[in-house]
Amino acid sequence: MRIKLTIEYDGTGFYGWQKQNDFVSVQEIIEQAISSVFDNSETIELYGAGRTDTGVHATGQVAHFEIFSENLISAWQNNIAKLADAINFYLLNRAIVIVKSEIVPEDFHARFSAKMRHYKYLIYNRRVKSVLYANRAWHVPKLLDAKAMNDAAQYFLGTHNLNSFRSRHCNAQNPVRTISSIKVYFDTEFVIIMEISARSFLHNQVRITIGTLKQIGEHKYPPEHIKELLNKQDRRIAGVTAPPYGLYLTGVDY
Amino acid sequence: MRIKLTIEYDGTGFYGWQKQNDFVSVQEIIEQAISSVFDNSETIELYGAGRTDTGVHATGQVAHFEIFSENLISAWQNNIAKLADAINFYLLNRAIVIVKSEIVPEDFHARFSAKMRHYKYLIYNRRVKSVLYANRAWHVPKLLDAKAMNDAAQYFLGTHNLNSFRSRHCNAQNPVRTISSIKVYFDTEFVIIMEISARSFLHNQVRITIGTLKQIGEHKYPPEHIKELLNKQDRRIAGVTAPPYGLYLTGVDY
Repeated sequence: MRIKLTIEYDGTGFYGWQKQNDFVSVQEIIEQAISSVFDNSETIELYGAGRTDTGVHATGQVAHFEIFSENLISAWQNNIAKLADAINFYLLNRAIVIVKSEIVPEDFHARFSAKMRHYKYLIYNRRVKSVLYANRAWHVPKLLDAKAMNDAAQYFLGTHNLNSFRSRHCNAQNPVRTISSIKVYFDTEFVIIMEISARSFLHNQVRITIGTLKQIGEHKYPPEHIKELLNKQDRRIAGVTAPPYGLYLTGVDY
Repeated sequence: MRIKLTIEYDGTGFYGWQKQNDFVSVQEIIEQAISSVFDNSETIELYGAGRTDTGVHATGQVAHFEIFSENLISAWQNNIAKLADAINFYLLNRAIVIVKSEIVPEDFHARFSAKMRHYKYLIYNRRVKSVLYANRAWHVPKLLDAKAMNDAAQYFLGTHNLNSFRSRHCNAQNPVRTISSIKVYFDTEFVIIMEISARSFLHNQVRITIGTLKQIGEHKYPPEHIKELLNKQDRRIAGVTAPPYGLYLTGVDY
């Protein structure tokens, strides 16, 4: 039986989503919690929709796993919504919570079946830092022109070679991606939000995108600058990789 | 020279605003930081606009203090905006930040000159708790009717005896207060916000108000119930005192 989880976490204390030796990852902690629910009778392999980096948060990460034992399947198949509560009991001291648990068809894959991923990036735009947004937003002291940033953002819409906007360590063979929607706006007096949606993203793409839009917001370049960056396909001429703690994976559509 | 500070803090780690023996208060930490800026040459007494309780946050607390030394006055009077930065340097490891520092007339008093105080209360309204809103909102699992809560809230508008809505430990002689504005709404899918403004509030008034409106949101009582509670002037018949960590002092007008 294949089970889909929707997951929220505060990425601050984790070395990202993906399991790795010697470092605490979100994936590993959830796998352990699920195993505990099943009294360690099954080996749990969890597949996530997006491999969020160290410090990146999620309000709508999605993952799936499989259980094989007939006993477990019959115990949970008519009560699957409560599996989230049972897993959450083992996550009580962790900054992770399972928002929802559902049964999905056997061909569902959290990563490969995803039709759209949604991210949000928060900038705290005030001279002094915010303590309530510590580890929750990128502090940019100088007032940004969010309108110019939004104008610039529209050049990303559609299908482009995004070589200028991916990490040098990105190992995707194809750098072409399709941005389905993007907007930048002041949500409250000091908080600028960028929302961006695409079927898939390159490594660090969202953080380099906002790092570059920040330069537009500072009037270092005009909005049309993005066109040039897309054409030149060179990481060195785009903006900085914005810090991870402003980034949120907000949802995945299937 | 009298100086006004606008202050943000995460109330989680403090025993409230007000200085007290053996417990760490926001007031004390800021007084120490200001003293450090002045090399402890002046005794700093800080007067706050609102005495927030343990765990209560602020984005717009206001306080004032006085400096007397001619040297300090001449050092800072033409550079007062930068005093905030200097104080913040001594607050670096604290969840407190000075947002603004200004010179004010000698008759300005953060508490007694206040014409209006603004508070916000956050409810996180989803079956499972949010880890990103830990210590930031009251988790209410059952879906609330925010429209009914807002309808009920309007009965508070204007001048009323608020005996039903203050702590038994409130020592204000006059329980009559004037609510200038109040509204309740879903800000995002899971976050309900109550905004409330009045010249002054009784002890725990905002938290008892939202604790009572929650009962309306649960359809335990109709909105008109508030009228009865206002008339009966009895704390025992109002709702619970909502937890402190959902409450924010957002601003003070003079």
